[in-house]
Amino acid sequence: MDQVEFQIRRSVEQVEEGTDLAPKFGADGLLPCITTDAETGEVLMLGWMNSEALKRTIETGEAHYFSRARQVLWHKGATSGLVQKIVEARVDDDQDAIWLRVRVAGSGASCHVGYRSCFYRAVPVGEDAGKPLKFTEDQKTFDPNAIYGDSPNPTQL
Amino acid sequence: MDQVEFQIRRSVEQVEEGTDLAPKFGADGLLPCITTDAETGEVLMLGWMNSEALKRTIETGEAHYFSRARQVLWHKGATSGLVQKIVEARVDDDQDAIWLRVRVAGSGASCHVGYRSCFYRAVPVGEDAGKPLKFTEDQKTFDPNAIYGDSPNPTQL
Repeated sequence: MDQVEFQIRRSVEQVEEGTDLAPKFGADGLLPCITTDAETGEVLMLGWMNSEALKRTIETGEAHYFSRARQVLWHKGATSGLVQKIVEARVDDDQDAIWLRVRVAGSGASCHVGYRSCFYRAVPVGEDAGKPLKFTEDQKTFDPNAIYGDSPNPTQL
Repeated sequence: MDQVEFQIRRSVEQVEEGTDLAPKFGADGLLPCITTDAETGEVLMLGWMNSEALKRTIETGEAHYFSRARQVLWHKGATSGLVQKIVEARVDDDQDAIWLRVRVAGSGASCHVGYRSCFYRAVPVGEDAGKPLKFTEDQKTFDPNAIYGDSPNPTQL
């Protein structure tokens, strides 16, 4: 396993059409990461990565994020056991977003609220615009209180 | 079709476990939107929405984004014809990210470089960490020059 080094962004052609990994992090040092279930294609979560989280993810083959709530590097599953093993990682055209296709250990959940996916509510659109959100998962896969205990909830108002 | 109004964020319970749509936009007024092919589950792109883009998306059933490069509301497909019709929209636990499952008109492409998905390159991980990116689509679905002509490339270094 090589130490991962990112390349310097020199041209649009290099970034879009080349084979260099030259990611662009935002003003806050982070880029968004889409994580999907490698089997079903379901979007499990949208996380954020700083440079270190992306390097660790690539080097270990397990998803690492930067927790904006706690402001720390976060090895997903270190507390809950729900580690995300990477089946495939992708980068987008301008290299400011990552897509991970993963297999999740344990119960398979990825959401701190207890659901499989963080995206457990549908937003009615078109003719149904303005109606209440609809739950798409009818039960939680684990009890967050049992797993996380007194840890603060990461959701911020 | 109702005019869509967002709710005020009052409590973690309301945001995570309720049926109110109470989205949280970042300091820049934007939130990330993951757009996947409703049939295959493939991630097509990661876009950004401001409040107006999210409202228009919900009201029309077609994806609208906020272009960070051009700093304008962007009805996806208005130039290229590759409109994204929403099959299902979802919101995540803390309501700071959106997931759209779409059907794309025309050639089915969503990437300005000409590929179907913006995520057309794999990042080697684990034992292969540090190796060059690998292309996962071997041909473009359209010729960007023919469609976009002299429009500036949205990729920023």
